[in-house]
Amino acid sequence: MELVEAALAGNRRAIARLITRIENDGDDAHASLSQIYPYTGQAHIVGITGAPGTGKSTLVNELAKAFRAANRQVGVIAVDPTSPFSGGAILGDRVRMRDLAGDSGVFVRSMATRGSLGGLARATADAIKVLDAAGFEVVIVETVGAGQSEVEIAETAHTVVVVEAPGMGDEVQAIKAGILEIADVFAVNKADREGADRTAAALEMMLDLDQTPSSQTRSASRIVIHHGQLMEVAQHPPHSTATGPDVPNDVSASRRWRPIVVKTIALRGDGIPELIQAIADHRQYLETSNELAHRNRIRLTNELEHILRDELMDQLLKKIDPSILVSLMTQVADRELDPYTAARQLLKNSYKGKRQRRSGDA
Amino acid sequence: MELVEAALAGNRRAIARLITRIENDGDDAHASLSQIYPYTGQAHIVGITGAPGTGKSTLVNELAKAFRAANRQVGVIAVDPTSPFSGGAILGDRVRMRDLAGDSGVFVRSMATRGSLGGLARATADAIKVLDAAGFEVVIVETVGAGQSEVEIAETAHTVVVVEAPGMGDEVQAIKAGILEIADVFAVNKADREGADRTAAALEMMLDLDQTPSSQTRSASRIVIHHGQLMEVAQHPPHSTATGPDVPNDVSASRRWRPIVVKTIALRGDGIPELIQAIADHRQYLETSNELAHRNRIRLTNELEHILRDELMDQLLKKIDPSILVSLMTQVADRELDPYTAARQLLKNSYKGKRQRRSGDA
Repeated sequence: MELVEAALAGNRRAIARLITRIENDGDDAHASLSQIYPYTGQAHIVGITGAPGTGKSTLVNELAKAFRAANRQVGVIAVDPTSPFSGGAILGDRVRMRDLAGDSGVFVRSMATRGSLGGLARATADAIKVLDAAGFEVVIVETVGAGQSEVEIAETAHTVVVVEAPGMGDEVQAIKAGILEIADVFAVNKADREGADRTAAALEMMLDLDQTPSSQTRSASRIVIHHGQLMEVAQHPPHSTATGPDVPNDVSASRRWRPIVVKTIALRGDGIPELIQAIADHRQYLETSNELAHRNRIRLTNELEHILRDELMDQLLKKIDPSILVSLMTQVADRELDPYTAARQLLKNSYKGKRQRRSGDA
Repeated sequence: MELVEAALAGNRRAIARLITRIENDGDDAHASLSQIYPYTGQAHIVGITGAPGTGKSTLVNELAKAFRAANRQVGVIAVDPTSPFSGGAILGDRVRMRDLAGDSGVFVRSMATRGSLGGLARATADAIKVLDAAGFEVVIVETVGAGQSEVEIAETAHTVVVVEAPGMGDEVQAIKAGILEIADVFAVNKADREGADRTAAALEMMLDLDQTPSSQTRSASRIVIHHGQLMEVAQHPPHSTATGPDVPNDVSASRRWRPIVVKTIALRGDGIPELIQAIADHRQYLETSNELAHRNRIRLTNELEHILRDELMDQLLKKIDPSILVSLMTQVADRELDPYTAARQLLKNSYKGKRQRRSGDA
C-alpha cells in the first residue's frame, strides 16, 4: 500500500496511478478506497456544467489559475460523457494542462464514460475521494450538460456552477427549468457577445419567479430514513422527499440561497474574481446552514446506492445460467415473452439455483 | 383489461391512461405490459436529440406534421430530463399540441425525470411499447442532449437524429466526438443563421475523419452472449464488445452507414422533406443490413438490465433492517467506514437475514 501512502502525501504520479487502479475496479481498488476514505471530507467540491460551446473548459482553466493564485490546491476532474468511444479524454488532459503545466498544486484528470449504468458517477466519486484525501482543497468537477449528468453533478458537488452563453437562441428555451433547481451560481460566459445582458436578465427573472416555497426543495435522495424506517423515495416525485430525525428537516428552512448570476469572459479572465467570490459565498452559506451536512449525506447515500446496484447485478450475473438467458432473450426478441416477465423468471431461476446448491451441500 | 384492448384499438384516452398506469409501476402495470408486448415491434423509433436552443421541439413538430401529411400515424414522446421538479412536462404537452390538436393520428406525451436511476429510460421504453402496440407507425422520442441521455437514446431508437444549430460557438468544440457515434442523421437547424454552412461543413469533415474501421463500432450492449457464455461487457471499453452466434457479428460489416447531414429551418418548414427522406433512407439501410435485428436485440438487452437492476434493488431494500442501514450510513458520514465496505456489510446482512428466516421456517 505504498502507493496509497505516496498519494496521501501528495505525490502526483501516485495520485494518477491510484485513480487508475480504482477505475479498474479490482480488489486492490476497494482496499485502497478503504484506506484513503478516513482522509476525505475536507475538499470543497465545485461542479461546473453547461452545454457544449458555452466556454466551460476555458472557464474551468481560469478558475483553477485563480485558485492557485490564492495559494489553494486545485484538482480538476473533467467528465466527458459525450465521448464514450473516442480517446477524447486523454487529449483533453493535454490541452487543459497547457496553462497549468509544472504546477504541483494543480491536478487535472479527464474521465470518459464507463460502459455501465452509473459507472461514470461511481468512478467520478472515487476520483474525487482520491484528490480530497491527497489534500486538494478545491475539487472542480466539470461535466457536459444537460440531462441526467446535471442531476448527477448536483448530487455530487457542494456548489454547482451552471455556465450559460448568450446567443444560444431563445433565452427562455435555452434556460431549462431544471437548471434553476441545480444551480447555486450562474456564469453567463462570453459576456462580450450580444445578448449577454438579456441572458443574465432572463436568469434573474426566472430566479425571482422561482423563489416560491414549493420549488425550494432540491433533494434527490433515494434511500431516506424516516422515523427509523427505511424509505425508498426513488419512485415518488421528489416533492414527497421524506425527512426525519436522521435527515435534518432543512429542505425548506435552509434553502434560502438565491443563486448568484455572474457575467464572465473566460478567455480574458474577466469576472473570474467575482465568480470565485460567489463560490466562496455559497460555501459560507453551506457551512452556516444545515445544508453542508445534508448534501454530504445525500451524496453518500446515492453513492451507496450506486455501489449496491452494481454489486447486486454482478452477483446476479454470476448466478445466471447462460443457456437460460439466451433462451429468454430469444423469446423476448420474438415477442413471445415481455422483458418484465423475463426478468422475473431470471430472478426466480437464480434463487432456485442457489437453493439447490445449498441443499446439495447439506 | 378493457383499458388495454381500447388502447390497442387506438383509443387516445385509453392510450394516455395506459401509459400513466405503466408509469405508476404497480402490478397492473406489469400485467398490461405483458398483454401489449406481442403487438410491439412494428414502429420505427426515431430519436431526436440536441442541446437546448437548437430548435429541436419545433423540428419535432414539423416532422410530425410531415409524417401526418404522408398519412402515417405518429407518436411523440418528449423526454425532458432537465426538468425533474417542475411541471414543465405538462406545459410542454399543451404547447406542442397546438399545431396538431384534433388529429387522432398524432399522440404527444411528455415525460419528466423519475427519481430513480434509469427510471426515465424504463418509463420511456414502456411508453414506446404502448404507442407501438397501439399502431403508431413512427414513434419520435425527443430528448435534451448531451450526455448520458444521448447514449440512452442511441440504445432506444432505430434512427437517431442529432440537431445542431450554428452560432453555438466554436464548431469543433460544440460538435462533440461522442455525437458522431450516435448520430444517423444530422439536422443543422436554423440554417438561415450565419455559420450554418460552416457547421454543416465541419460535420461533414468530422464524418470523413470518422469513417475509419476502428471507430465504426457503436454497440453499447452490456450483457452479451459470446459462444454461449454470458458476458458482461459493461466494465470494459466498448471496443471490446463481444459478438457471437447470438449477436450477429455485423458491427464492422454493416456499420457502413455514413450519417446524412441535412440543413433545416424548422420554423419555416424548410428542409423537412429532406430530413424525412434521410430518416427513410436510414430505415431502409437498417432493414437491408443486419443492423435492425442487432439494434433491437441491444435495446431489449439493455431494457432487461434496467428492469433487473431495479428489481434487485427493490428486493434488497425490502430485506434490509432499517436500523442497520441507519447505523452504517452514520459510520460512512463520520468517515469511520467507506461506502464499499458498507455496501458489502449490507449485502452480507441481507443474506444472513434470509438464511435465518429460512432455518427458522424449517
